[in-house]
Amino acid sequence: GKRKFFSDVAERTTVPGVATGLAWTPYGGDILFIEASVSRGSGKLHITGQLGDVMKESAMLAISYLRARYEELNIPEEAFKYWDLHIHVPQGAVPKDGPSAGVALLSAVASIFTQRKVKGTLAMTGEITLRGLVLPVGGIKEKVLAAKRAGIEKVFLPQKNEKDVEEIEKDVIGNLQVEYLDRMEPILDLILEDKPVQDPKEFFKVPDSHKNQVSGNNAKSDSTQEVTVMD
Amino acid sequence: GKRKFFSDVAERTTVPGVATGLAWTPYGGDILFIEASVSRGSGKLHITGQLGDVMKESAMLAISYLRARYEELNIPEEAFKYWDLHIHVPQGAVPKDGPSAGVALLSAVASIFTQRKVKGTLAMTGEITLRGLVLPVGGIKEKVLAAKRAGIEKVFLPQKNEKDVEEIEKDVIGNLQVEYLDRMEPILDLILEDKPVQDPKEFFKVPDSHKNQVSGNNAKSDSTQEVTVMD
Amino acid sequence: GKRKFFSDVAERTTVPGVATGLAWTPYGGDILFIEASVSRGSGKLHITGQLGDVMKESAMLAISYLRARYEELNIPEEAFKYWDLHIHVPQGAVPKDGPSAGVALLSAVASIFTQRKVKGTLAMTGEITLRGLVLPVGGIKEKVLAAKRAGIEKVFLPQKNEKDVEEIEKDVIGNLQVEYLDRMEPILDLILEDKPVQDPKEFFKVPDSHKNQVSGNNAKSDSTQEVTVMD
Amino acid sequence: GKRKFFSDVAERTTVPGVATGLAWTPYGGDILFIEASVSRGSGKLHITGQLGDVMKESAMLAISYLRARYEELNIPEEAFKYWDLHIHVPQGAVPKDGPSAGVALLSAVASIFTQRKVKGTLAMTGEITLRGLVLPVGGIKEKVLAAKRAGIEKVFLPQKNEKDVEEIEKDVIGNLQVEYLDRMEPILDLILEDKPVQDPKEFFKVPDSHKNQVSGNNAKSDSTQEVTVMD
Amino acid sequence: GKRKFFSDVAERTTVPGVATGLAWTPYGGDILFIEASVSRGSGKLHITGQLGDVMKESAMLAISYLRARYEELNIPEEAFKYWDLHIHVPQGAVPKDGPSAGVALLSAVASIFTQRKVKGTLAMTGEITLRGLVLPVGGIKEKVLAAKRAGIEKVFLPQKNEKDVEEIEKDVIGNLQVEYLDRMEPILDLILEDKPVQDPKEFFKVPDSHKNQVSGNNAKSDSTQEVTVMD
Amino acid sequence: GKRKFFSDVAERTTVPGVATGLAWTPYGGDILFIEASVSRGSGKLHITGQLGDVMKESAMLAISYLRARYEELNIPEEAFKYWDLHIHVPQGAVPKDGPSAGVALLSAVASIFTQRKVKGTLAMTGEITLRGLVLPVGGIKEKVLAAKRAGIEKVFLPQKNEKDVEEIEKDVIGNLQVEYLDRMEPILDLILEDKPVQDPKEFFKVPDSHKNQVSGNNAKSDSTQEVTVMD
Ligand SMILES: [Ca+2]
Ligand SMILES: [Ca+2]
Ligand SMILES: [Ca+2]
Ligand SMILES: [Ca+2]
Ligand SMILES: [Ca+2]
Ligand SMILES: [Ca+2]
Ligand SMILES: [Ca+2]
Ligand SMILES: [Ca+2]
Ligand SMILES: [Ca+2]
Ligand SMILES: [Ca+2]
Ligand SMILES: [Ca+2]
Ligand SMILES: [Ca+2]
Repeated sequence: GKRKFFSDVAERTTVPGVATGLAWTPYGGDILFIEASVSRGSGKLHITGQLGDVMKESAMLAISYLRARYEELNIPEEAFKYWDLHIHVPQGAVPKDGPSAGVALLSAVASIFTQRKVKGTLAMTGEITLRGLVLPVGGIKEKVLAAKRAGIEKVFLPQKNEKDVEEIEKDVIGNLQVEYLDRMEPILDLILEDKPVQDPKEFFKVPDSHKNQVSGNNAKSDSTQEVTVMD
Repeated sequence: GKRKFFSDVAERTTVPGVATGLAWTPYGGDILFIEASVSRGSGKLHITGQLGDVMKESAMLAISYLRARYEELNIPEEAFKYWDLHIHVPQGAVPKDGPSAGVALLSAVASIFTQRKVKGTLAMTGEITLRGLVLPVGGIKEKVLAAKRAGIEKVFLPQKNEKDVEEIEKDVIGNLQVEYLDRMEPILDLILEDKPVQDPKEFFKVPDSHKNQVSGNNAKSDSTQEVTVMD
Repeated sequence: GKRKFFSDVAERTTVPGVATGLAWTPYGGDILFIEASVSRGSGKLHITGQLGDVMKESAMLAISYLRARYEELNIPEEAFKYWDLHIHVPQGAVPKDGPSAGVALLSAVASIFTQRKVKGTLAMTGEITLRGLVLPVGGIKEKVLAAKRAGIEKVFLPQKNEKDVEEIEKDVIGNLQVEYLDRMEPILDLILEDKPVQDPKEFFKVPDSHKNQVSGNNAKSDSTQEVTVMD
Repeated sequence: GKRKFFSDVAERTTVPGVATGLAWTPYGGDILFIEASVSRGSGKLHITGQLGDVMKESAMLAISYLRARYEELNIPEEAFKYWDLHIHVPQGAVPKDGPSAGVALLSAVASIFTQRKVKGTLAMTGEITLRGLVLPVGGIKEKVLAAKRAGIEKVFLPQKNEKDVEEIEKDVIGNLQVEYLDRMEPILDLILEDKPVQDPKEFFKVPDSHKNQVSGNNAKSDSTQEVTVMD
Repeated sequence: GKRKFFSDVAERTTVPGVATGLAWTPYGGDILFIEASVSRGSGKLHITGQLGDVMKESAMLAISYLRARYEELNIPEEAFKYWDLHIHVPQGAVPKDGPSAGVALLSAVASIFTQRKVKGTLAMTGEITLRGLVLPVGGIKEKVLAAKRAGIEKVFLPQKNEKDVEEIEKDVIGNLQVEYLDRMEPILDLILEDKPVQDPKEFFKVPDSHKNQVSGNNAKSDSTQEVTVMD
Repeated sequence: GKRKFFSDVAERTTVPGVATGLAWTPYGGDILFIEASVSRGSGKLHITGQLGDVMKESAMLAISYLRARYEELNIPEEAFKYWDLHIHVPQGAVPKDGPSAGVALLSAVASIFTQRKVKGTLAMTGEITLRGLVLPVGGIKEKVLAAKRAGIEKVFLPQKNEKDVEEIEKDVIGNLQVEYLDRMEPILDLILEDKPVQDPKEFFKVPDSHKNQVSGNNAKSDSTQEVTVMD
């Protein structure tokens, strides 16, 4: 059936952990939200929203990328060890797949772990890799139109998709700002707000009793070891 | 075959952990019960009732939502660490799927963890998301009719389904009250009784011997780590 | 092929852990035995007998129901923590499924955990739910006939199947007693013998060395965590 | 293809852990060997030989039966806690299934755990149950013929198959002795040699260093928790 | 496609852990190498090379056989507890199955665990069983020809295949030596070099820090518990 | 669809953990990047990029090879015990399989563990084995052309593919250097830069608190135990 996503701008990204992606569907482009949340645990990962293999792999890439660079990103190591991460993409009944949500997945997960909100007027698309490249994706014209329709002010696209944007008529793009990425590093500063809503060190702090419990059992301590996808 | 649900009002929600949902079937709407129970354990989740992927994911969303907000909801952290949660949807032989039971699943699980009963005269439908939105669902007219037939006094519907209700003739709705939700936060106060049947701190208290045992083994301590669906 | 069950009354229920269910098959009703046994372990569950998903879920419901009420049922908590439970339904080569064995599964498992034998002249059918309801099932006439043929003196049926019994001619039922259940609570007193064959506290007692070993490893201590169905 | 089993009598059952079963194939009856061996471990079970679901479940039944009665059978509890059990049925490339190897599986496993050899001139067939019944099986005539061909002196059959034997001509049976079982209890005394080749307490003794290691890790200590079938 | 194996004699078996098997393919016989290697770990088993179920089961049989006899074979118990075993059969893209590589698998694994090299001029074929028999296999003539082509000096075949060799013309066999096995015991002395390249006690020694770590976690200590086949 | 890989030379191998492989596709040869990264953990392996069974097995072979030789390769044992390894092959939506990426996988993983970068002007193809051989692969001509197109200066090919190169016209190869491998040992010195970007002992050092946590739980300490492929 037709894939519809809700574009209520006011409901977007009012808390850390939500990023706005751009989807291509047979009925045109649309925006979709990537939601990430954490709760005290032991480093497990839950993925819901009927995501296909490739999209789940994008989530794994985002997590590995952040875990390998946690210090420079000011993410406390406790965030990976003593918390569980849940990633969801509404609407729950619509199967979703493909690598193009990589940048949005990275943004949502980086947002929850840094406690810095994604800027509410942004949307993004692009495949990510383990070493930090942003690779080009398809459906650029439809995605740009969907962003405009949803009231997005600025979109982030892969550098290698610049030629696809140049083929869109200028008045279609209008005042929509377009920025290009060819690596993942600048994402935090371009896409996330400068200030965290809360000091991540404080937010991810857990009592010693919790640490001891996680260490004393097989909680598979400091990594996103177990992917419990409801499949 | 035809899906039939039992609507014996007296048997509904006399204990915490039972919520009344609304289902759409090819034969019309019907009410269905969501049952949640807990027993001493180590944070495991069991789901039964022949639920499909999307409906299981709704249960995961409900649990992640509650775990991320346990303090403001007055749920003791012990409830997630030292107890197992079982969710069942009768009738056991009828396959069930779809995201529209999200609000009812959240209500049943919140009810068992807060020990506050769901108000017995209510029914509800709506998809939930990780960050707390209530998304619209289908089959509103059939569901409203089913609620009336079952003697329900008030139904909770997604805000975005208001237009679907406006298309139903007034005399069909009669004195059935309709309330709209666009976020999940108010659910506890709207749907659960004010007073718990028992202080949740008392109810979920476990002896130290149990805590030590859970910590000393791989009980995967404080989270709903393992979904043992009998599938 | 034709499903045949052995109805040797003398071989029935001479030890705790065996209950007599009633099955519907394309060739008429039949009785089937539910067998439950325990051995020292760590709370694991094994199910054999080529049971289908729905029937395995019934077993899960029976166990969760008993675990949530262990104190009032006089089941020592050790029974769930330091013992493994095996449920089998002969004949091993005949696939079996459906929710109607719920009451018999509950009876067999309650019997082994309370060490009270199921009364040998009884048979039963009915779906169970997590919060304790007994739901109606199909094939009542065929099941009643099978019970008579097997020399059963009394059958327990769901309350909501009373109308199906009323449609059977009186002389077919003869002196077979029929009792109705609409909740699971009374089952212990109606179906199990009053006296345990052995004090369950004594039976389920284990040496400290066993407790320490279970706590010290990942035995997933006090719950039926792992279902190793040979499938 | 045609199923061929090797019936070299001299190679049979010269050590504990080997029992001789009787198989029915489209090409007639045949004998098959059930092999069981143990090695220091932590209670794991390995099954090989391309066994189907029903036959694997028979192995589970045999093990649960022995574990629930280890004291009366003089099996040291250490045998289940600190050793792994491997069951194999040659020939490895021939798929095998069905419940009729139950008695032979029970005999082979009882033999390895009691260290008493199966008497070399015996063969057996019959389904087993959890509470100790021996149920009838098919292909009796073909199996009896195969036993004779292989030089077997005595076969054990289910009591309820007596009628099938009575239909075989007397001169076909010749001097083959036939004994009937309707329960599993007498198997040890009928089928196993009186004296163990080694005191099982000595054989299954392990150093404390091994016990500590098993307790200190998640070896899932005292049960056949994990079935690693190479499938 | 056509299965080709490389028969570079010089590259064969220059280190412990490599044995030369004989394969039958639709294009004739061929030789194939079985590779085994160990690295510090906790008793895990990895199998690669696109092996089918039956061939993986042969590997399990070889390991169980060696684990049950480690003392008489002079294999330190540490080899199973504190090391992982990897078995690979090149070429990685060619699916391989069947029980006839059993003797070669046993030889490769015995070689790595005893640190005694397989004699470089040997090749072998035969199914193995848990209690130590060598069962006959197919394709004997093709395998013998392949061994000759590859410059093999001596082949080991199952005793029960002697009749297949007698049907091959004498000048085909030429000076290829043929030796027969009906049990697995003599393999070590017939197939492995007398002297280990290194004292296995020294080779498999690990520091206490490693032992403690393995004991302190769920490394599933002393057995080949977890088969992580990349499948 | 057509498989396209990005050959931006500047983006290649600027950090340890990236190697350049050569792929054959129905549309001709292409280069592909193998990415490896590590993050603090407990020896887990994650593989993404829609790799097929055979390619995943190549990764396992590379890891086992390195783990068995860590001392001579100057890889700290901590790298396997206290870190997780992630291997990814962009582009994420393109399924990839086959054994020919073995040498490139080995190079990428060796690079991350030794912290020595792969020389940026190299590309490679070849199947690897557990004992260290490099086996020949297909599509040599197409791969050589792709390397030239991508600006590669030197390619490493299996020794046994030398004859395939000799069939390519000289002017096609031009100034592309070709080097042959028949064993895996020399790879480190031929393909990796001499100097690590950082002392691996320093890079893989972890605080004692991390070591204790990994030992105290079931982190499956020192090996690549659990392959969580998002599949
Ligand atoms: Ca650029
Ligand atoms: Ca699915
Ligand atoms: Ca609203
Ligand atoms: Ca199912
Ligand atoms: Ca009633
Ligand atoms: Ca099955
Ligand atoms: Ca009898
Ligand atoms: Ca199979
Ligand atoms: Ca012989
Ligand atoms: Ca495969
Ligand atoms: Ca060479
Ligand atoms: Ca896939």
